[in-house]
Amino acid sequence: MDLPHIGRLAAGPRNSIADVAGVTVGHCTLDAGSVQTGVTVVVPHGGNLFTHKLPAAVAVINGFGKSAGLVQLEELGTLETPVALTNVFSVGAVLTAQVRHALQSNPESGRSLPSVNAVVMECNDGYLNDLHAFAVQESHFRQALAAASTEVEQGAVGAGRGMSSFELKGGIGSASRKAAVGAVGEFTVGALVLSNFGKLPDLILDGRPLGRELVGLSGLAAQAAASDAAPEKGSIIMILATDAPLDARQLKRLATRAGAGLARTGSAYGHGSGDIALAFSTAQQIEAGSECVHASLLADHLLDPLFHAAADSVEQAIVNALFAAQTVRGRDGHERASLRDCLAAANLPSSP
Amino acid sequence: MDLPHIGRLAAGPRNSIADVAGVTVGHCTLDAGSVQTGVTVVVPHGGNLFTHKLPAAVAVINGFGKSAGLVQLEELGTLETPVALTNVFSVGAVLTAQVRHALQSNPESGRSLPSVNAVVMECNDGYLNDLHAFAVQESHFRQALAAASTEVEQGAVGAGRGMSSFELKGGIGSASRKAAVGAVGEFTVGALVLSNFGKLPDLILDGRPLGRELVGLSGLAAQAAASDAAPEKGSIIMILATDAPLDARQLKRLATRAGAGLARTGSAYGHGSGDIALAFSTAQQIEAGSECVHASLLADHLLDPLFHAAADSVEQAIVNALFAAQTVRGRDGHERASLRDCLAAANLPSSP
Amino acid sequence: MDLPHIGRLAAGPRNSIADVAGVTVGHCTLDAGSVQTGVTVVVPHGGNLFTHKLPAAVAVINGFGKSAGLVQLEELGTLETPVALTNVFSVGAVLTAQVRHALQSNPESGRSLPSVNAVVMECNDGYLNDLHAFAVQESHFRQALAAASTEVEQGAVGAGRGMSSFELKGGIGSASRKAAVGAVGEFTVGALVLSNFGKLPDLILDGRPLGRELVGLSGLAAQAAASDAAPEKGSIIMILATDAPLDARQLKRLATRAGAGLARTGSAYGHGSGDIALAFSTAQQIEAGSECVHASLLADHLLDPLFHAAADSVEQAIVNALFAAQTVRGRDGHERASLRDCLAAANLPSSP
Amino acid sequence: MDLPHIGRLAAGPRNSIADVAGVTVGHCTLDAGSVQTGVTVVVPHGGNLFTHKLPAAVAVINGFGKSAGLVQLEELGTLETPVALTNVFSVGAVLTAQVRHALQSNPESGRSLPSVNAVVMECNDGYLNDLHAFAVQESHFRQALAAASTEVEQGAVGAGRGMSSFELKGGIGSASRKAAVGAVGEFTVGALVLSNFGKLPDLILDGRPLGRELVGLSGLAAQAAASDAAPEKGSIIMILATDAPLDARQLKRLATRAGAGLARTGSAYGHGSGDIALAFSTAQQIEAGSECVHASLLADHLLDPLFHAAADSVEQAIVNALFAAQTVRGRDGHERASLRDCLAAANLPSSP
Repeated sequence: MDLPHIGRLAAGPRNSIADVAGVTVGHCTLDAGSVQTGVTVVVPHGGNLFTHKLPAAVAVINGFGKSAGLVQLEELGTLETPVALTNVFSVGAVLTAQVRHALQSNPESGRSLPSVNAVVMECNDGYLNDLHAFAVQESHFRQALAAASTEVEQGAVGAGRGMSSFELKGGIGSASRKAAVGAVGEFTVGALVLSNFGKLPDLILDGRPLGRELVGLSGLAAQAAASDAAPEKGSIIMILATDAPLDARQLKRLATRAGAGLARTGSAYGHGSGDIALAFSTAQQIEAGSECVHASLLADHLLDPLFHAAADSVEQAIVNALFAAQTVRGRDGHERASLRDCLAAANLPSSP
Repeated sequence: MDLPHIGRLAAGPRNSIADVAGVTVGHCTLDAGSVQTGVTVVVPHGGNLFTHKLPAAVAVINGFGKSAGLVQLEELGTLETPVALTNVFSVGAVLTAQVRHALQSNPESGRSLPSVNAVVMECNDGYLNDLHAFAVQESHFRQALAAASTEVEQGAVGAGRGMSSFELKGGIGSASRKAAVGAVGEFTVGALVLSNFGKLPDLILDGRPLGRELVGLSGLAAQAAASDAAPEKGSIIMILATDAPLDARQLKRLATRAGAGLARTGSAYGHGSGDIALAFSTAQQIEAGSECVHASLLADHLLDPLFHAAADSVEQAIVNALFAAQTVRGRDGHERASLRDCLAAANLPSSP
Repeated sequence: MDLPHIGRLAAGPRNSIADVAGVTVGHCTLDAGSVQTGVTVVVPHGGNLFTHKLPAAVAVINGFGKSAGLVQLEELGTLETPVALTNVFSVGAVLTAQVRHALQSNPESGRSLPSVNAVVMECNDGYLNDLHAFAVQESHFRQALAAASTEVEQGAVGAGRGMSSFELKGGIGSASRKAAVGAVGEFTVGALVLSNFGKLPDLILDGRPLGRELVGLSGLAAQAAASDAAPEKGSIIMILATDAPLDARQLKRLATRAGAGLARTGSAYGHGSGDIALAFSTAQQIEAGSECVHASLLADHLLDPLFHAAADSVEQAIVNALFAAQTVRGRDGHERASLRDCLAAANLPSSP
Repeated sequence: MDLPHIGRLAAGPRNSIADVAGVTVGHCTLDAGSVQTGVTVVVPHGGNLFTHKLPAAVAVINGFGKSAGLVQLEELGTLETPVALTNVFSVGAVLTAQVRHALQSNPESGRSLPSVNAVVMECNDGYLNDLHAFAVQESHFRQALAAASTEVEQGAVGAGRGMSSFELKGGIGSASRKAAVGAVGEFTVGALVLSNFGKLPDLILDGRPLGRELVGLSGLAAQAAASDAAPEKGSIIMILATDAPLDARQLKRLATRAGAGLARTGSAYGHGSGDIALAFSTAQQIEAGSECVHASLLADHLLDPLFHAAADSVEQAIVNALFAAQTVRGRDGHERASLRDCLAAANLPSSP
């Protein structure tokens, strides 16, 4: 079964968030027996983010989540650190690591300059990973940061190492879409997801109810029946980058469209799923300390192509995570199967 | 091509919002040349809503809309009038009509009792309807109210008379789903939509990219090309009723899931589309003037079946509106074709 | 007792919202027996607001209110009509009047152009005014608009005709403050309030608990005792204008500071009081239809002087409304006394 | 100069947040040269909060802050850990400490049970404290928790050790008010603040512009002049507890009133001040895992006395922090003077 292309828009050359110029992604993966977890960092630009902030916004689609740094981002509409992703119990460690890292380049933060607002987002990988080991250390954040590049590895890597999606192996997925905006020009929207949500029967693959088909297969059926009784404890973090010149208000509109892409994969935003989208624009940097901010923004009535790009790239990124992830075994013999393996075992036809 | 059944949950006996006991719907349709508009009323219960309010909440998915009454509903979490739907320029007339009607039964409102908070929601039917005629009068609201029943007429009726969806004829659609909630029992979620959004190429019918298929056909292709240049000026109002005992906070979560159903029909929440969902629960009435409110609510961790019911019933209601609506001709020779007519003309196979 | 000057900042030459260049205010007052009500219009600039919108935002401090037009203003961050103020049951009539007026200059609104988003805000003047008479007509909005000027009449005029504040006569008040913003220059913040909130014992005048002093006086004491049992049914609408270049996100921050000024007069944002602030900037117009929006904004770290100006001008405007309003008698023999008359009768010293 | 009593309501017997039965407060203070910081814990009840949650809500008045745990609290309306307060760079350490502590009593959290949502709130004490030392360790949270009692120490203790307010010594303050609610009975609202905001000239003490008076004094005048040029880098966290039966929606309304009390002390919610209020009710516990939540809530129209109690107790708590705090010297010779010392030195009269 081939990996489908979602929607009507073309992908960028890498079909990843790194198609937005300047954006890089790094992982640090912990893979040792019952420790199956890690850190992923999305770096919006290569400079000093604290002195050269980016407009940004968050859409909390379902707030069962423990992300840090969102209050100030909502108030000021700026991103001033990379976005770090990790497991739910490691937010504290990565938060401290983010702050320490920002202080290296900005020693006056918290003194003559304001304290830095670090963004750390998370999902719960406790099915495969021994959360109680608190295995993620500050050094893992720094390793992820040092590894950042435009080659975005996907699947069971970084923060995605222990994540599950639709009771299959989930994790990191990325995609991009190009959108022509009136006479202004073409812009790119890139998505990176930490995908850790969903029950198998709900999985929709590019419109096809694949989850229902798979549930009929031996093994998965039993697993699905057992899980139907349990409340969902997943989540998905959706990061959107764009080179379109948008301000924080417009980026909040863009982030909201991540929920449309998510819904098309079968999610109804489950109670226990922290479904949170963060969007930033690389078009214009906001220099700390300057007295005026000059901005040239797209008019709102031109945003529809970008909205479709956001929804489609998120849906694609979720699909990509499923297709990229290999089978992982973790704590207490728990295992999440790769979608590719399931499809091969089932000898499912590649078209419905 | 048969009307598909969306999702995995069963519908109620009427497959409409009236499957929630006590809920009725009435229409007043204006159909005279260039006047193609009307009023639809969703009546949550048969009693005095001002003295026996219902818990309610709103989710504004895209706020390009002119609905009235939402500020107080958000603050207090209660619905104290029927929900009236009409065209965008008639909100004022219907608002006054709502207030006058409430005063008939509650003459002390605005005197010794608080002023009544009337809810009026709208879409822009200006493509088919001569909005500038301001044709809707207060009496039309009263007629719609008087006509309320459990038989929910759908398609080009009431407020839906002049509405368009996916550049086809849209309007009123309704559906319901039954959801088993743990050991507590079975509850019903009903949806009624005023569907007036979407570009044809984006239409997805139960996962199938029907819009792209239809665009290939003569006539619709030309129309779609022309419209691609124009900004979307649609909207969708989504009303959710449930007999599950939920409070306003929980109903806001339920209303948010309307956006998931909407997305699955192909919407990316277009810039110019006022996509707004309102949810209320009929399980427990809040008596005005009493000093304590006693509530027995479902625990949040049991809500997933209701969330799926909300998403599925909204998606189904949008599909039902398309299948129910007949072709309508309105102002300046504008016409919106019925989906059924298009499918018949195209001799499209009923399965992909 | 002299009218105090609130805070440390200087007022503009008019000490009214009209100190923000281009802003005018008009009233239409209905004063006939039991009809004591009206319409007030704040006109942000003299041009066509639908084609030349202004950045704007709303802060809902307590949402017990029925204002119309706020959903879209929140989503798009623009104001495209004057702000009309009236009594709570006349929102519908004034809404329709606003739409009709906008169509005169913009006949394609609702056709090839989007429908216009009219803003109408309200308070409940039912103590003095016979709300059930629905006395406000569309023509009264047009009269208020025609009367708009930079001379801002205050007190029992326009929408303020029947309003009460602290169980005294309230109504329209206005004020302004000048704020030096770093090296950038000096800007003006102007406030206009429709003041209709508060119980007498809570009144604080520039820090002095005047309400408690007045309650001791005969007449007012009895009235206050009776009113203590009744729930508050007031409200306050606070309009802020500024010539500082701010976008919608920043204006929401500015509008939030109206609540600080309100609190200092003794309000704890009563349950039944719709306490809503709307702020707009006249510095840069947003031309409808243009593809890019160029903005030069003040940096957020410079906003403190403007925040103080917003809080102080609102507090001053509330005080000004009290000092400007004469005694009014309305329906059923109800009367609200002017603060000046009360002070004179009490022979209260001008300093504590 | 005597400590004033704010407002018209009586205080509870302790005039602290511990007047709400079950609430205790503990501090761990770090006082060593340039390390002037700590941890304060507000414990809502003595049981297992993860299994017996409390309804709670947050009002973000100005979101320049890095508090953690607020996203989920907003979505679900429940508090499931104590509220921990510390300095801005120690949020990560205390977050991890909170999680670890919750796991001791709830080892299935993050496995068969959902992950725990820990609440950590903060201010920036970098003027007196060497933030870059990252002096707060996980053990300090545990010490604060172990020290929790109904005797609420105030001033320069716990998280308040290094905090400044109005350029004087700030820190921890607490107060309570009793409110009679209709025929239902009397309830208590208690406030605890971590007070770290304000410029001296803005200080208002129970209506009296004390800041302006003090600025005239030698020493303080120079300091104030210097600080006027610098942007504010403060914040205030306001915790409200009540035994009134309120749900999360109502508690959000209560929390919003904290902003009224804050404003009356002279704050206009400065740009750089994270002004955040959190309110919880001890009246009814929400048992994790139970399928229904039974609640008996106060009707909203009875809330005004509680709203006044919230505003007054916050204003009082801020004043109490100023009066309780002794002079502290910290990093780089920085010093914040106690208000009491300033008043004594100035020989200021105790009444204006």
